[in-house]
Amino acid sequence: MKYSIGVDMGGTNTDMGLVSENGNIVLRRNIPTNAYTELEPYVRDMMREIKGMVEEQAARDGEAVDLEGIGIGAPNGNFYTGCVDNAPNLTIKGVLDFGKEIHKYLPVPVVLSNDANAAAYGEYVYGGAKGMKHFIMFTLGTGVGSGIVVDGKLVHGSTGGAGELGHNILVPHGRKCSCGREGCLETYTSARGIVQTYCELKASDECGVLSDELKSVTSKMIGELAHQGDPIALKTWETVADQLGMAMANSVTFSAPEAIFLMGGPTQVGEPLLKPLRKAFEKYLLNIYAGSCQIRMSELKANEVAILGAAALIKMKN
Amino acid sequence: MKYSIGVDMGGTNTDMGLVSENGNIVLRRNIPTNAYTELEPYVRDMMREIKGMVEEQAARDGEAVDLEGIGIGAPNGNFYTGCVDNAPNLTIKGVLDFGKEIHKYLPVPVVLSNDANAAAYGEYVYGGAKGMKHFIMFTLGTGVGSGIVVDGKLVHGSTGGAGELGHNILVPHGRKCSCGREGCLETYTSARGIVQTYCELKASDECGVLSDELKSVTSKMIGELAHQGDPIALKTWETVADQLGMAMANSVTFSAPEAIFLMGGPTQVGEPLLKPLRKAFEKYLLNIYAGSCQIRMSELKANEVAILGAAALIKMKN
Repeated sequence: MKYSIGVDMGGTNTDMGLVSENGNIVLRRNIPTNAYTELEPYVRDMMREIKGMVEEQAARDGEAVDLEGIGIGAPNGNFYTGCVDNAPNLTIKGVLDFGKEIHKYLPVPVVLSNDANAAAYGEYVYGGAKGMKHFIMFTLGTGVGSGIVVDGKLVHGSTGGAGELGHNILVPHGRKCSCGREGCLETYTSARGIVQTYCELKASDECGVLSDELKSVTSKMIGELAHQGDPIALKTWETVADQLGMAMANSVTFSAPEAIFLMGGPTQVGEPLLKPLRKAFEKYLLNIYAGSCQIRMSELKANEVAILGAAALIKMKN
Repeated sequence: MKYSIGVDMGGTNTDMGLVSENGNIVLRRNIPTNAYTELEPYVRDMMREIKGMVEEQAARDGEAVDLEGIGIGAPNGNFYTGCVDNAPNLTIKGVLDFGKEIHKYLPVPVVLSNDANAAAYGEYVYGGAKGMKHFIMFTLGTGVGSGIVVDGKLVHGSTGGAGELGHNILVPHGRKCSCGREGCLETYTSARGIVQTYCELKASDECGVLSDELKSVTSKMIGELAHQGDPIALKTWETVADQLGMAMANSVTFSAPEAIFLMGGPTQVGEPLLKPLRKAFEKYLLNIYAGSCQIRMSELKANEVAILGAAALIKMKN
């Protein structure tokens, strides 16, 4: 039977899965990324786990696994070169040529991209974007990522680094961003940006005095508070919705997608974000696009999307 | 010999040209768009001129013209439907099905798109973007338009209306735009936006009193003043450069193009705009794109780009 491997390379852990043709993760393994400082032993151990999964599945199926390839979602992953380029969050430094290293063990296609691109492609191959030719995925989490599909193809651009809408400047001379610039979407709609907005609203409500408990607040807690009817939490999500809605409307002027998908922790709050988001999106959308672009939640499970997205990348070779 | 027809449909005039394979406009004709209120007589007269050019060129060449097709750049032109959809600036109202009407006279391919998309494609087929796979064209004029090429294909999106970066919201709750929203790029970097910036700077310099002569100022005059060293004119172009540079940097986060092309009246000012623009673009560009995207001026002549762009559209069929 036909399978592909999806590898989700994070700074802490590397999750791997054997994925069936219909998008089921039939086996999973992981190794600790941050236990390695060199690519060779890291790939050696990764391949040991991958071979382990392939053999286990062959025994289950009673026939050899037809492995279509290995897809890798990684920070700073470059589709064109197949390399991870100097990712600041990894303990393995430098330009990492995965294809070359993996081919020492297994002669299968290797495709690599950044995690948000992989998530978008996973939605396309296995999720709610099946059959769509134009869509955009926004991933909200520690940062804000995006993946863009135009004419049924993931947009990589001339450098391989296209689709960084989290670093679209939303507010000229706005909040300081970790990228060194100001006003990026990420500073407003990432988990950290959402917490900052809540603290700012809370502080102005409490005459500028921030209580100690505010220092440990998370976007998840702000979500729970909103569901309990807390006015400052509700106001926080409305503010985030307004900012995200504007950014989403701006992205429509680029590629006129038929849908924008959302995924990631902060989107799990549901209606306190989604209700004002639909309103804001409509308000900021240029009239020629009215009614042409849906807002959709990712249809992949949160704990599967990274592996499925990585595994989906291999479908681009076909 | 092989030729194509480019039709530049403006609100006032319709310019037509017979274009040779290497991008020379060998014959030109025009009819007054605003003399028509119905599509039938308009296309009848358009086709009379087109047939006239074809016959004239056949006589010159001493052989029949091999006509590849007719490309039309038009306001609200929709690539997918081949129709002009309710363009507010045209005296011919409604949904105009050009393909159907033209095929009554000539059985050749007809391709239609909006004018900025056509300009971008003209640059790709006949101008400075030859051989590029990823680039963006910004057209500055009465409004601000754009055309986007990804993987060697013009981006039309799901509706046919992709590439409206002039209506990307640059400044949240900024200047009122003719589209009914606020803060669109167009309100800052169109000819009118540039004049507004100049008047605002002049007024604040003159304690809020706007002299009568300011009411008739044009972006061309502000360009001349800048070349004479006028400090307010220079400040105007610096302000415009900062705004356009930010918008251009934002567009790079989408498709990571290898170049951004500029065309249109206000860009003719040259260094007073381009020098601060290069600086602003570099300042606002996300570091992963540093050095990867050039700023280029259109290499097509201002009085030829619309016809060449329209004629180039026909190449998409091949």
